[in-house]
Amino acid sequence: MVFVGFGFLMVFLQRYGFSSVGFTFLLAAFALQWSTLVQGFLHSFHSGHIHVGVESMINADFCAGAVLISFGAVLGKTGPAQLLLMALLEVVLFGINEFVLLHLLGVRDAGGSMTIHTFGAYFGLVLSRVLYRPQLEKSKHRQGSVYHSDLFAMMGTIFLWIFWPSFNSALTALGAGQHRTALNTYYSLAASTLGTFALSALVGEDGRLDMVHVQNAALAGGVVVGTSSEMMLTPFGALAAGFLAGTVSTLGYKFFTPILESKFKVQDTCGVHNLHGMPGVLGALLGVLVAGLATHEAYGDGLESVFPLIAEGQRSATSQAMLQLFGLFVTLMFASVGGGLGGLLLKLPFLDSPPDSQCYEDRVHWQVPGEHEDEAQRPLRVEEADTQA
Amino acid sequence: MVFVGFGFLMVFLQRYGFSSVGFTFLLAAFALQWSTLVQGFLHSFHSGHIHVGVESMINADFCAGAVLISFGAVLGKTGPAQLLLMALLEVVLFGINEFVLLHLLGVRDAGGSMTIHTFGAYFGLVLSRVLYRPQLEKSKHRQGSVYHSDLFAMMGTIFLWIFWPSFNSALTALGAGQHRTALNTYYSLAASTLGTFALSALVGEDGRLDMVHVQNAALAGGVVVGTSSEMMLTPFGALAAGFLAGTVSTLGYKFFTPILESKFKVQDTCGVHNLHGMPGVLGALLGVLVAGLATHEAYGDGLESVFPLIAEGQRSATSQAMLQLFGLFVTLMFASVGGGLGGLLLKLPFLDSPPDSQCYEDRVHWQVPGEHEDEAQRPLRVEEADTQA
Amino acid sequence: MVFVGFGFLMVFLQRYGFSSVGFTFLLAAFALQWSTLVQGFLHSFHSGHIHVGVESMINADFCAGAVLISFGAVLGKTGPAQLLLMALLEVVLFGINEFVLLHLLGVRDAGGSMTIHTFGAYFGLVLSRVLYRPQLEKSKHRQGSVYHSDLFAMMGTIFLWIFWPSFNSALTALGAGQHRTALNTYYSLAASTLGTFALSALVGEDGRLDMVHVQNAALAGGVVVGTSSEMMLTPFGALAAGFLAGTVSTLGYKFFTPILESKFKVQDTCGVHNLHGMPGVLGALLGVLVAGLATHEAYGDGLESVFPLIAEGQRSATSQAMLQLFGLFVTLMFASVGGGLGGLLLKLPFLDSPPDSQCYEDRVHWQVPGEHEDEAQRPLRVEEADTQA
Repeated sequence: MVFVGFGFLMVFLQRYGFSSVGFTFLLAAFALQWSTLVQGFLHSFHSGHIHVGVESMINADFCAGAVLISFGAVLGKTGPAQLLLMALLEVVLFGINEFVLLHLLGVRDAGGSMTIHTFGAYFGLVLSRVLYRPQLEKSKHRQGSVYHSDLFAMMGTIFLWIFWPSFNSALTALGAGQHRTALNTYYSLAASTLGTFALSALVGEDGRLDMVHVQNAALAGGVVVGTSSEMMLTPFGALAAGFLAGTVSTLGYKFFTPILESKFKVQDTCGVHNLHGMPGVLGALLGVLVAGLATHEAYGDGLESVFPLIAEGQRSATSQAMLQLFGLFVTLMFASVGGGLGGLLLKLPFLDSPPDSQCYEDRVHWQVPGEHEDEAQRPLRVEEADTQA
Repeated sequence: MVFVGFGFLMVFLQRYGFSSVGFTFLLAAFALQWSTLVQGFLHSFHSGHIHVGVESMINADFCAGAVLISFGAVLGKTGPAQLLLMALLEVVLFGINEFVLLHLLGVRDAGGSMTIHTFGAYFGLVLSRVLYRPQLEKSKHRQGSVYHSDLFAMMGTIFLWIFWPSFNSALTALGAGQHRTALNTYYSLAASTLGTFALSALVGEDGRLDMVHVQNAALAGGVVVGTSSEMMLTPFGALAAGFLAGTVSTLGYKFFTPILESKFKVQDTCGVHNLHGMPGVLGALLGVLVAGLATHEAYGDGLESVFPLIAEGQRSATSQAMLQLFGLFVTLMFASVGGGLGGLLLKLPFLDSPPDSQCYEDRVHWQVPGEHEDEAQRPLRVEEADTQA
Repeated sequence: MVFVGFGFLMVFLQRYGFSSVGFTFLLAAFALQWSTLVQGFLHSFHSGHIHVGVESMINADFCAGAVLISFGAVLGKTGPAQLLLMALLEVVLFGINEFVLLHLLGVRDAGGSMTIHTFGAYFGLVLSRVLYRPQLEKSKHRQGSVYHSDLFAMMGTIFLWIFWPSFNSALTALGAGQHRTALNTYYSLAASTLGTFALSALVGEDGRLDMVHVQNAALAGGVVVGTSSEMMLTPFGALAAGFLAGTVSTLGYKFFTPILESKFKVQDTCGVHNLHGMPGVLGALLGVLVAGLATHEAYGDGLESVFPLIAEGQRSATSQAMLQLFGLFVTLMFASVGGGLGGLLLKLPFLDSPPDSQCYEDRVHWQVPGEHEDEAQRPLRVEEADTQA
């Protein structure tokens, strides 16, 4: 099931054409294989063999998800060699971070608010900071969307929306736990969609909606319950969390992304800070709260599968909450240090980074149909016309 | 599984761009939540709590399906506030109608020929009648499709086609009943596809096919077996029903939709009368017929799950058939009265209905890329050029 | 599950617009029904009735897959009547070939490297040879892609990629066998994707990638393990096979397709020889190898489900391998003779083949939006501009 959910994570990024789709595909295929190896060494290395199975496939999918989130932050400004190097490093750090959180600290994070979204987003954002291009203005005219590319992106959004409940519940305990996770995710997504539409109309010119908000912020509800959806969040809690996430994310696109670029020198192409960064951190904090409220009464027998250490009496709900919080801190550290290191590596000159004036441009990396003709350069003509706006 | 089927019901409507996809998404998210509440009060309200689970998610999906069918009839002529008000009313009536049919009358309607398709279509059509715009001609040039938008719509068709067997069988009895439902749906769809191609070539200029027929009428086979697919329809019966539905639906698009507008003053944007209205009624009548023929011999032990009241001897096959017919009548009444009422409500002036000359136009509701440029208004230029046709 | 995998096989071909999608849909619906009948007579004809069920649906899907592969070879050069006649013949031959291989020879071919891919590809290629059009140059300018059509095709690729593991494992033994099949397919696909990117950059001008390679060759990994994925291929074996398939397929697109047309007079529109033909044959040979190495030690109790005849001692691993090889030979014979016969049938004059100058042109078969206007023929204008290239 997660296989499907993961697939559309790739489609979501396709509004910048061949490179978006193609490199997403390349990165995913590479990250899947490399993370199977890395996670195999960390988790299931027995007597010289790595044991693989459906769970290792799902884990590798999750890791590929984090790599694709980071890709969203640097989209259009990096070549394929740079991206593969980024994935090489990020997969290792993802594996170590996940190992520390889930196995050493006993943190719960079924849908990956911390391990996938927060890690992937801040890794990508710090990396994008290191690769800051002051002259990116030269390619700014190519950063927008055209009518049909927005429809493509919207298809990605709808797919992700549909499969997110399966994604969050893929690694939870079968039965009641899995149902609860799917339902919580579903309510949160529905609420974040409504929140996004409301806020987008509120902050738009003349009350008109913005497609970017709908494509992205509507999904923030899935991110925000990544940690807590398997817990006793209650439908009302899920609705509230989703609405909040949709609101925060929409406001982020409208007001925070421009500040991020002008003040913090972070050029966040897809706005991963709004869709994955802030909602991921919110989701982790929500997990802290819900974990701290866990009692035997509320969970009954289900406590064993959600919080085994509390059920066995080895840990109190409060200490679980503190460790969840510490897990968020660890994730942010790994992501920042890793992203900084990755940024320095990606500056190596032989990696063929596109020049400032050729960012967001497929022709640097792909043979584009119609490029030899003088008249029929339709997709390009549209982009050039954008310049005059 | 139905989650998936439902998701693509939204994609199906996307040929009018941002508004189609965006408002579908908004309506679905709203209808899902509101119908969970409404149906919770009607079906599973115990000691002050609503019980939710996978079945209530599926039920909410079905309800969202009916709302989206009605949306198809008024597509392009209503603003978001109007649509939300429509959904608010329709979800309540859908819940009551379904409750009357399934719980009070003991009608069988697993795939919703009556409760979803007939109800949704006639609700939308009556509503569209009340909102009749004599000056719609002013926006007629924007009502057509362009080459790529037809391809998008076709993707929606193929998705719906694939998931329709799961959709019809989602709430049927596990095991033999579910297999029978899926197979019947599948044969009916295959036959309606062939019927549609044959008829479309027959009635087209120079024997050429029309994309509108293929996009829509090919799915009529799924609608027509909505009631009867869990019954002993036999593969031959499914093939015949599907072929008939495809034929009727194609003829409806070619000949009946123009009459509907000129004579009955119903402006049916997506032709929901052809895809959902007529096939839905046909499907309900087919259900009457097949229910009337139900015997212990034909069903064996399966009778218990398909017609529990007949199996327990409380009802004869003939009286089941009469009640199925009465259920269709009830549905048409609820849909017509509800649609009429809804139409009057939607005429309230503060709901921001788009003017006659601005129908089927995204820029009323959305910030569209390229709209500030004089030269690069590609999607619009194409539409304007249409005017001269 | 295969239902889904099959559905996207249709989407994969949509880069030539209405006809690609529409005829794929028509062919699939026809082949599904016709192959249910044909395979019913061959496999499950008991006392005058054909028994249908989920397995017969999957079998019919597989058969439709082979028909669509052949369609890929003649895409753009055949009308709907020709295609239906082709499907009528091919479905029968597919059924007989499959019956000979699986039932008479006891060959194993769960994912259809032989029965689906090799058969479908060579049937289509021989048929395309018979229908060779020396004057096809007149339509050459319409054979390319445009920017958005490549993105549509890429969506098809990603869907197929995701569902291929389910496709290959649909008819394997439940449990360990199904898991092994899915994992092997998954590793092979990941490796073929990397191989394709590497080779595409290596052989491209200025090291740039070609979308055609990525769309197609990346999937060769799924084809190449069609026979052997249920066997003990080992993850390393799957990775190696996938990488090889991606490499061979990319080289085929770059160097072999032009030779195929100029020297062998085979006009292979979609390059099915590269995606299905060569990887299918490679996959069959890989199956020979892996079957020859089968031992009781390696498979344990699983031998019963993968190679029942070896497990029962009726056949040695070596003779199984020889029969697998013979099965490939039988498939190639059936495909060639059938394709030749089909080609002759399709030359019948009343079948309405499009003229040489009207190949790859939707307007021959469809009412295309905007075709009556002088100015707004956008999709056509682009194509006409191509002529001047």
